Amino acid sequence: MQVGIIGGTGAEGRGLAARLAAAGVNVLVGSRAIERARETVARLRDTRESLAIEPATTEQTITQSDIVCLSVPFAQAAAVLDAHRGKFRPGMLVIDVTVPIVFEGGAPQFVQVAEGSAAEHVRRLVPGEVRVAATFKTIPAALLGRVDVPLDCDEFVCGDSADARERATGLLRLIAGVRPIDVGGLDAARAIERLTWLAIRMNKQHGVRGARFRVVGL
Amino acid sequence: MQVGIIGGTGAEGRGLAARLAAAGVNVLVGSRAIERARETVARLRDTRESLAIEPATTEQTITQSDIVCLSVPFAQAAAVLDAHRGKFRPGMLVIDVTVPIVFEGGAPQFVQVAEGSAAEHVRRLVPGEVRVAATFKTIPAALLGRVDVPLDCDEFVCGDSADARERATGLLRLIAGVRPIDVGGLDAARAIERLTWLAIRMNKQHGVRGARFRVVGL
Repeated sequence: MQVGIIGGTGAEGRGLAARLAAAGVNVLVGSRAIERARETVARLRDTRESLAIEPATTEQTITQSDIVCLSVPFAQAAAVLDAHRGKFRPGMLVIDVTVPIVFEGGAPQFVQVAEGSAAEHVRRLVPGEVRVAATFKTIPAALLGRVDVPLDCDEFVCGDSADARERATGLLRLIAGVRPIDVGGLDAARAIERLTWLAIRMNKQHGVRGARFRVVGL
Repeated sequence: MQVGIIGGTGAEGRGLAARLAAAGVNVLVGSRAIERARETVARLRDTRESLAIEPATTEQTITQSDIVCLSVPFAQAAAVLDAHRGKFRPGMLVIDVTVPIVFEGGAPQFVQVAEGSAAEHVRRLVPGEVRVAATFKTIPAALLGRVDVPLDCDEFVCGDSADARERATGLLRLIAGVRPIDVGGLDAARAIERLTWLAIRMNKQHGVRGARFRVVGL
């Protein structure tokens, strides 16, 4: 299985690449600028040479991966997906990792999305035969990148089909210390993306960096 | 300290009354119909005679309490608050427990609120000198009522002032097994109320009744 990360050089993308590669997954770190992808891969390999991790352009990331994680700033998602719409293949899975949040004076501001959530926005922008799931939205980027720190949290998975949710859940299961929780259709992202906002708010307010969630009673 | 519950005969209100009374708080169970309040109180006293819990009309609940919890269906909040607007006193605390959720064919549907959240809706409807906090929104009603089951979860508190949050937090601290988490201003209710929706969704999807949350890393 090949997993590609669009926006693989950002904090969230790098963290995701590090965790997945550490779990034995073949990872493509995708970037508009291949040179930046190479730098990120070199840095990740610095810490562990054996990682199966390679740099790629955004186009290569899409054409060479079975699962593509979209980890760009939310405001760029539409442009990236529009530009590469023809490159997605039927049966591929896109995992949306974006959150519609901007920072104003350091404070997180939630951005209203016409489709209801970033995940539903992404669903509208990729071809109908491509499956879409959303996950990795509430695990703090700062923590993802520190591969030796156990995540010790739950992570919500929603998707446009049982197949999409199962594949995303399978990927999550490879990462130590995370329990995937299937919460159904993509409309659940409306709640999940607000949770990310709440986690950031708690981080700011309580002076921590890794606020995250567990579900009790499940 | 006298705590009153508007809508004290509903599932959430009854559960709240039971937990607070068990924690030694003086509780008024408020209802439009005093007879229903009396029935609820009789049932609660059945399980433990020593509870400091009394029936009241909605008006009595407001005029005789230091803290009033609003636990009516969200659609009724405006009518109840409008009808009793003149009864609130400066310095009182209103704790909003409502969530803007309706059920369609058994599935929870989130209702968009013009003010951004039910808590901000309530803030607009009570006099300016009354303080407003929001909490008890994500603890499942079914669990609240089972006083002998430890809650074992966190509960978010937001409010229009540090004073409002401190008083709501103080009330939460009396209940065994709950850790209050201060998440700042009332706009945080936009996320918290979505969490309630997510908890209900998880309950339905996974066949449980008590899905609730813990925050890790705090």
